Amino acid sequence: MQNTKISVLGDGGWGTALSLLLSKKGYNVTLWGAFPDYISELRKSRENKKFLPGFTIPDSMVITANAEEALDGAVLAVIAIPSKYLRQTLQKIKEVEIGSTVLASVVKGVEKETFKRPSEIIKEELGSVRIAVLSGPTIANEVAEGLPASSVVASDSEETATLTQEIFMSEAFRVYTGEDVVGVELGGALKNIIAIAAGISDGLGFGSNAKAALFTRGLVEMARIGTALGARLETFSGLSGMGDLVTTCISLYSRNRYVGESIAQGKKLTDILNGMEMVAEGVETTQSVFHLAKQIGVDAPITDQVYKVLFEDKNPLEAVNDLMTRNKKAE
Amino acid sequence: MQNTKISVLGDGGWGTALSLLLSKKGYNVTLWGAFPDYISELRKSRENKKFLPGFTIPDSMVITANAEEALDGAVLAVIAIPSKYLRQTLQKIKEVEIGSTVLASVVKGVEKETFKRPSEIIKEELGSVRIAVLSGPTIANEVAEGLPASSVVASDSEETATLTQEIFMSEAFRVYTGEDVVGVELGGALKNIIAIAAGISDGLGFGSNAKAALFTRGLVEMARIGTALGARLETFSGLSGMGDLVTTCISLYSRNRYVGESIAQGKKLTDILNGMEMVAEGVETTQSVFHLAKQIGVDAPITDQVYKVLFEDKNPLEAVNDLMTRNKKAE
Repeated sequence: MQNTKISVLGDGGWGTALSLLLSKKGYNVTLWGAFPDYISELRKSRENKKFLPGFTIPDSMVITANAEEALDGAVLAVIAIPSKYLRQTLQKIKEVEIGSTVLASVVKGVEKETFKRPSEIIKEELGSVRIAVLSGPTIANEVAEGLPASSVVASDSEETATLTQEIFMSEAFRVYTGEDVVGVELGGALKNIIAIAAGISDGLGFGSNAKAALFTRGLVEMARIGTALGARLETFSGLSGMGDLVTTCISLYSRNRYVGESIAQGKKLTDILNGMEMVAEGVETTQSVFHLAKQIGVDAPITDQVYKVLFEDKNPLEAVNDLMTRNKKAE
Repeated sequence: MQNTKISVLGDGGWGTALSLLLSKKGYNVTLWGAFPDYISELRKSRENKKFLPGFTIPDSMVITANAEEALDGAVLAVIAIPSKYLRQTLQKIKEVEIGSTVLASVVKGVEKETFKRPSEIIKEELGSVRIAVLSGPTIANEVAEGLPASSVVASDSEETATLTQEIFMSEAFRVYTGEDVVGVELGGALKNIIAIAAGISDGLGFGSNAKAALFTRGLVEMARIGTALGARLETFSGLSGMGDLVTTCISLYSRNRYVGESIAQGKKLTDILNGMEMVAEGVETTQSVFHLAKQIGVDAPITDQVYKVLFEDKNPLEAVNDLMTRNKKAE
């Protein structure tokens, strides 16, 4: 392991937490970020103050803004770039030779205009490569602290899935394999819409009964949209669906939940987003899914209401009431 | 409605909260409790200080320890008695004429020795009656406060289900109908085991990632046991399964979660239970399901570990580790 090189592309909270996890396992980890100034600050301070404060990055970890240096000789490269910046970042590094390096995407979200999933974008930009996707209930801070967590890795190739599983698996971080790449990626994207709704419920002062109802109906909505796009139904009952949704709805660290809570407390969306260092992927996902669901004719009542609250200044209380009093009588 | 009489049998937190809800809807509500001393205290103080403190019981509500008076002329009687005391309580009132009164059981739990569900016990003790079961993510305090909540009512008779739905339905309390009586009742019982496990995770200082994993695996375990006993799989994805499980795992009011948390903090089970006014149904449910699962040959790893922690002094950390490191590799 000492000589096995892993590179992590993306110096956000999740990229940094995974770098620490892999480094603790004894891998030779290189962390890459797109912004040279921030990277040289990171290299000096050995702490990711913006995105994962409170954790020391060991001296053994290489920190670089040079993609060629990062990828050279890496057995596996973790792609941990926000979906919003994914394509443009990959375009910058597409000249670098990928070779047999396995790419493990941990990106949660979809491309706003095209609704393409991260692994699709990676394939388009970097050509034919070995890709796995890893997702699940994995709040970055908790993983960095070494608290127990679990996730699922899916790939079209069983060999690629198993290799990725072995690299990430540890006593505290359990990795299961799966085959449904579409479902695993869509779960991680769609749950952010429901997390915003859960945050709205919190912000209105509602309790855990309301959140549980939103959660239950939300998962049905996620599965309905996901299966319409080719995902398998059962994937939404797993770690990357229900599991990730739970942690996102209950964690105080969840950015999307926070956006919902803030907007229900009367703040303006632009002010909320401007005040955040991190990206709340769910805001753009809501826009995409709102339009997509209409295009493909899928019923998405929670997404509709979240969209109206975020982008049409609908009163949050009215939105929740409209959801609660829908005419559905049988479960 | 002014003349429609509803009786609520059981003066615990949930019975009281439902009495308040029905009274607010304009029904003529009679609340019955088994202990004459506590009932006369309740009648004077107009507050259920032990089980639902902070809420005033209106003067219009009749409070009685006389079952005949309670049931006489009632269109519907809510059965809100802890499963542990259900059979013996029903035996005391079985001489009372039930007639066409619909019985709506809101009991969560099963009979320890027989694993019988509340509606089965009711049928056995009161003979052929019209029964519905109501369950879902419904923490009593929140419902009493008028915060939004939702639930599902199931009955073998569609007419009985619809009548019960109409009686409970309000703007803040949404009621859906279902047909799977077995699934609705078992969801409400089995989730308490997982809630204890979630509490153990909390007590060990673990975060929302660990809880989400327990939750996801826990629901699979609930569905596996439930379907082996005749429930429908999809019921566990609904309000009475997943929904109730979520609220129980996250609410600070959940007694079962509290039991798990306390035991992980090093307290003894008998001390915890002696210190609680309310019944933590999950403790006995864990015992029942532990033995039942072995009898019917169903794999129940979370129940096994919770049982060992509660009744065999197993170290909680070791129990969670044993769960996390099980040999399962594919999700």
